[in-house]
Amino acid sequence: MLQNKKKLAILGSTGSIGTQSLSIVKNRPDLFDVFLLSANSNYELIYKQAQEFKPKHIVVNTQKAYLFLKKNLDKNITISMGMTQLCEVVQLPEIDLVLSAIVGSAGLKPTISAILANKNIALANKESLVVAGELVMRLAKQKSVDFLPVDSEHSAIFQCLTGEKSKSVNRLILTASGGPFLNLPKKDFKKISIASALNHPNWKMGKKISIDSATLMNKGFELIEAYWFFGVPEKNIDIIIHPESIVHSLVEFVDGSIKAQMGVPDMTTPILYALGFPNRIKYPFKKLDLTDYNKLNFFKPDKARFPHLQLAYDCLALGGTSTCSLNAANEIAVNAFLNKKISFVKMFKLIEMSLEKSIFVSDPGLEDYINVDSETRKITSELISKI
Amino acid sequence: MLQNKKKLAILGSTGSIGTQSLSIVKNRPDLFDVFLLSANSNYELIYKQAQEFKPKHIVVNTQKAYLFLKKNLDKNITISMGMTQLCEVVQLPEIDLVLSAIVGSAGLKPTISAILANKNIALANKESLVVAGELVMRLAKQKSVDFLPVDSEHSAIFQCLTGEKSKSVNRLILTASGGPFLNLPKKDFKKISIASALNHPNWKMGKKISIDSATLMNKGFELIEAYWFFGVPEKNIDIIIHPESIVHSLVEFVDGSIKAQMGVPDMTTPILYALGFPNRIKYPFKKLDLTDYNKLNFFKPDKARFPHLQLAYDCLALGGTSTCSLNAANEIAVNAFLNKKISFVKMFKLIEMSLEKSIFVSDPGLEDYINVDSETRKITSELISKI
Repeated sequence: MLQNKKKLAILGSTGSIGTQSLSIVKNRPDLFDVFLLSANSNYELIYKQAQEFKPKHIVVNTQKAYLFLKKNLDKNITISMGMTQLCEVVQLPEIDLVLSAIVGSAGLKPTISAILANKNIALANKESLVVAGELVMRLAKQKSVDFLPVDSEHSAIFQCLTGEKSKSVNRLILTASGGPFLNLPKKDFKKISIASALNHPNWKMGKKISIDSATLMNKGFELIEAYWFFGVPEKNIDIIIHPESIVHSLVEFVDGSIKAQMGVPDMTTPILYALGFPNRIKYPFKKLDLTDYNKLNFFKPDKARFPHLQLAYDCLALGGTSTCSLNAANEIAVNAFLNKKISFVKMFKLIEMSLEKSIFVSDPGLEDYINVDSETRKITSELISKI
Repeated sequence: MLQNKKKLAILGSTGSIGTQSLSIVKNRPDLFDVFLLSANSNYELIYKQAQEFKPKHIVVNTQKAYLFLKKNLDKNITISMGMTQLCEVVQLPEIDLVLSAIVGSAGLKPTISAILANKNIALANKESLVVAGELVMRLAKQKSVDFLPVDSEHSAIFQCLTGEKSKSVNRLILTASGGPFLNLPKKDFKKISIASALNHPNWKMGKKISIDSATLMNKGFELIEAYWFFGVPEKNIDIIIHPESIVHSLVEFVDGSIKAQMGVPDMTTPILYALGFPNRIKYPFKKLDLTDYNKLNFFKPDKARFPHLQLAYDCLALGGTSTCSLNAANEIAVNAFLNKKISFVKMFKLIEMSLEKSIFVSDPGLEDYINVDSETRKITSELISKI
């Protein structure tokens, strides 16, 4: 049944989510065809991926990568370069599902472009919703596309909501591992090294998201993401710390019943769910045996040590472009930390100062988001040397 | 919108499930009307219930109760007596949903009678499925009635399966509190008193089911019930001990994802769910805050101290009338224990001896079940004095 294979566009194929999704394709070649792969600059890896998965199109973002692939790859693979090209290629009629797994706000434009061409979306790029949730969700609804979460927490909530009515929902409960510094005393936060911040206890992830997990900014973004994905007001979205990362998130209903989705901490499950939707794909999974874990822990997050979390609630309540600014300032701050320009604790201060200076648009369109994003980046970058 | 109220028949209205369901009706009189109440002999309570809920029909099972109600209740409530009458009244066209909450195998006939009249069923009487699962499920399917679990574990599984395809299910995981003797050393089982056996740590329940929870026979019955309710082979149904009774049960899917339903240990939630189906009813519930619990424990059941559990697996694998015999022998054994005729540990021996002597029909109809049930009761009763 070759004609029934789902044709995938994988944006960000060389990243953590991208490579894991290609493992799934490799395991279930009966279900998927890779039509498009895109990456930023990692031409060595995308070259290997192209040889293995034989996509019809590749889009990269650097001239070096473009020239290398053009020279070395089979001529029936169309190579292109740049954001404009990506936004065009992602609209090609052959594509059934776009996995949006570019890191950061760079994922926004191609995601919107894919929605406008009525593509179903598997969204790993949470920044699309953090930056421009109102716009993205409005378009997804207008175009009636399947809009599927890939983040494990949102996939959990999505799965718990399957077959339930939206009016039945009372509260969403996002779980957080707490990251590598869950039990670190406040006084020791000043000494946090890059290596220790990248060393997440449960999840194997990219660098940016690992740092965001260490500050709990990632959980703040997930709060914003959940708000847009599921249309639940922020006062009805709680966050609880669950260090084992076994319960991926929960939904409380109006009758007091709670549903949770669980599994070993492995992104394969949520990616699999999004790629296979509306079917669950039979897969050689790592079995979760609750009796291996013995005890599961749950407690409230400490907003004193992890102030990023409250910032996310505040920006969400503020609305407009404030979460867009939060995301931009955070990306610059994380880069500055990873490049040894500022310390771990200074990331929060930098974001806070940047938010005070950044522009605010209360009823933004795409151009406003893009302007605020780039303006906030400038402002934040200039502030680095001043803190 | 009076015409939209669901008309309920509550069989076993003076029992634990019956009274809790009437509390729900009292809280949401906008949703439900009580059409029929039935009880065995507790005429004082059913008299009060009749005054409060004004059913059109009452069926009791003793002459004393019948005469009392006939004399004292309003004349426009029709009072009748006996199983045959109950089986007739339960078929009246006005009834929308029958809550089958009679204790023990006495619930089988009226449940079948209701199904035959195309009534939707909320099943608290698990014995209907333990005794005659094949027949009951076949009829429910033939008549296309909603067949809804009330046991918290099965309600949990049912809720987790909402919106999922049956081919997506890999494994069911029933949780068990472990009962009052979870940590009691084997040598002390001989000394177990009736009072301590009735003292369940988490759930407030009737006497029979409290003893069944202490021996884990109840969990064995729930295994059988799950087998028939969800059509999952017994090798794919696991039982895990979870002393907090917060996670009510779980479903593992073919992609490795697990869904669980949770809540405080309160039968209100599963009763509410069954009464309201397919809608969730907004209700003043006791909120589950996972951070109050801090730690949740899970471990494997100890079949050496709780041999009833393996017996349930074995009888299920054997098929035919063997689970019917198991149920009958167990009812006699529990009564003998409650009446101080045998000790706690002797219950298992009595059941085992009874199963060795009881008749086995491999492809039974209703009459076979009823014969085997009554024969096994006789055999078991005769054995009491011999062990």
